[in-house]
Amino acid sequence: MTTSTGRPSRRPRVAAIIVAAGMGRRMAPAGNGRHQSSPEQSPAKQFLTLSGRPILAHTIDRFESTPGVGEIIVVVPAGDEERCEETVVRPFGFRKVTRIIPGGEARQASVACGLASLADGVELVAVHDGVRPCVTTEQIAAVIAAAVEHDGAILAVPLRDTPKEVGDNRLICRTLDRRALWLAQTPQIFRRAVLDHAYATASRDGYLGTDDAALVERLGYHVAVVEGSPQNLKITTVDDLPVAERWLAAVHG
Amino acid sequence: MTTSTGRPSRRPRVAAIIVAAGMGRRMAPAGNGRHQSSPEQSPAKQFLTLSGRPILAHTIDRFESTPGVGEIIVVVPAGDEERCEETVVRPFGFRKVTRIIPGGEARQASVACGLASLADGVELVAVHDGVRPCVTTEQIAAVIAAAVEHDGAILAVPLRDTPKEVGDNRLICRTLDRRALWLAQTPQIFRRAVLDHAYATASRDGYLGTDDAALVERLGYHVAVVEGSPQNLKITTVDDLPVAERWLAAVHG
Repeated sequence: MTTSTGRPSRRPRVAAIIVAAGMGRRMAPAGNGRHQSSPEQSPAKQFLTLSGRPILAHTIDRFESTPGVGEIIVVVPAGDEERCEETVVRPFGFRKVTRIIPGGEARQASVACGLASLADGVELVAVHDGVRPCVTTEQIAAVIAAAVEHDGAILAVPLRDTPKEVGDNRLICRTLDRRALWLAQTPQIFRRAVLDHAYATASRDGYLGTDDAALVERLGYHVAVVEGSPQNLKITTVDDLPVAERWLAAVHG
Repeated sequence: MTTSTGRPSRRPRVAAIIVAAGMGRRMAPAGNGRHQSSPEQSPAKQFLTLSGRPILAHTIDRFESTPGVGEIIVVVPAGDEERCEETVVRPFGFRKVTRIIPGGEARQASVACGLASLADGVELVAVHDGVRPCVTTEQIAAVIAAAVEHDGAILAVPLRDTPKEVGDNRLICRTLDRRALWLAQTPQIFRRAVLDHAYATASRDGYLGTDDAALVERLGYHVAVVEGSPQNLKITTVDDLPVAERWLAAVHG
């Protein structure tokens, strides 16, 4: 049963695609940053341990514990499916994980793999970064609620610092007005038909976005922001690990 | 002695203005964030304790310990001068603090107060937020070096998340290209004549910027970015305190 706008009027069937297929990214300390390469290659960071569990296990647990979420698809680097099953899904007894599938080269290709493997009847799709373990069940539920009201919704935080456009010569070109700017996080949750349409169109156009909402917005759909928190950080450097541990401890009380 | 470009050829005289005059800002947890007011008013956050010292004492210490910095001016809320002297400067024996002065209503007015009280002979002025205690002496020295090469330089970090322009209705208007975007931090360090010119012009024009570099850039001066780190956070909510403690412990070894 749907309303006249084509949106589900009862609790929608929600599936989560957890993207943990990032390969070859280095866990260098920030500040030695993205402009400098490091000689040693670290293990895939989603399997690193945080407060006694793989990062990915924390992340899956947040969706497992959110009542509205019915199934979870985990997208991992090709060849890591068994490792994910044996070190993450089975030891922690996650019951909602229906599939562990190999991802593609880029993030967008990995999400497309997840979308292609969704069960029939799924109405809302939540895409979430495997390395954002500090999201809360309340945040996930709030984004689901906003996605039902619109075509989609994402967790995001207002900018705290002044954004500068910087040239290749490392000189500032201009200052942007930060008041209307937010930083996108995940989960990003969309009506399934909307996300299918956005991915099919992006593929046809050869469009690459830095997040899922970008693919959806460009088609004119309405995507809402739900205010998240800086704690929902994306773990990208070793410096983030102790911070995430502090915040996880706070989440779990 | 100066070079033909008017820039000092020997080690320049550097003064730091530490801006700790923010009043009436609430230390609400993030996410109950900037769009919701909290009934209780917290004490001025620059005097809150972090790892056993007032936040401001950590911040001053970073500049006290940087060899190139000759003097430090601390700008505090009007009426807090004695408190700053008795709880921050005297107990920790800071020798470079030459003045503690009252600031204005807004940040820009407070920096202007600091500028007006600089000693003769100062060639470079470093402006720094009192609530960024995790900056390192190496970062300060790197920004000084870059400022000498240009008209000014600031510490900044590349954007990690996708920036969205969001309307008043909380719907996303568009996605910005994050590749050329950096987030400004402090210190922001400028040739004194440049900063004097920028402040005089902003005052004449009634221009309010969200950081000091904005006032300088609009006049066509060259301001460079030096890559900082996310650790150099601006403490704005109680959630930031444990994070800052972790990072301070790392800084001090």
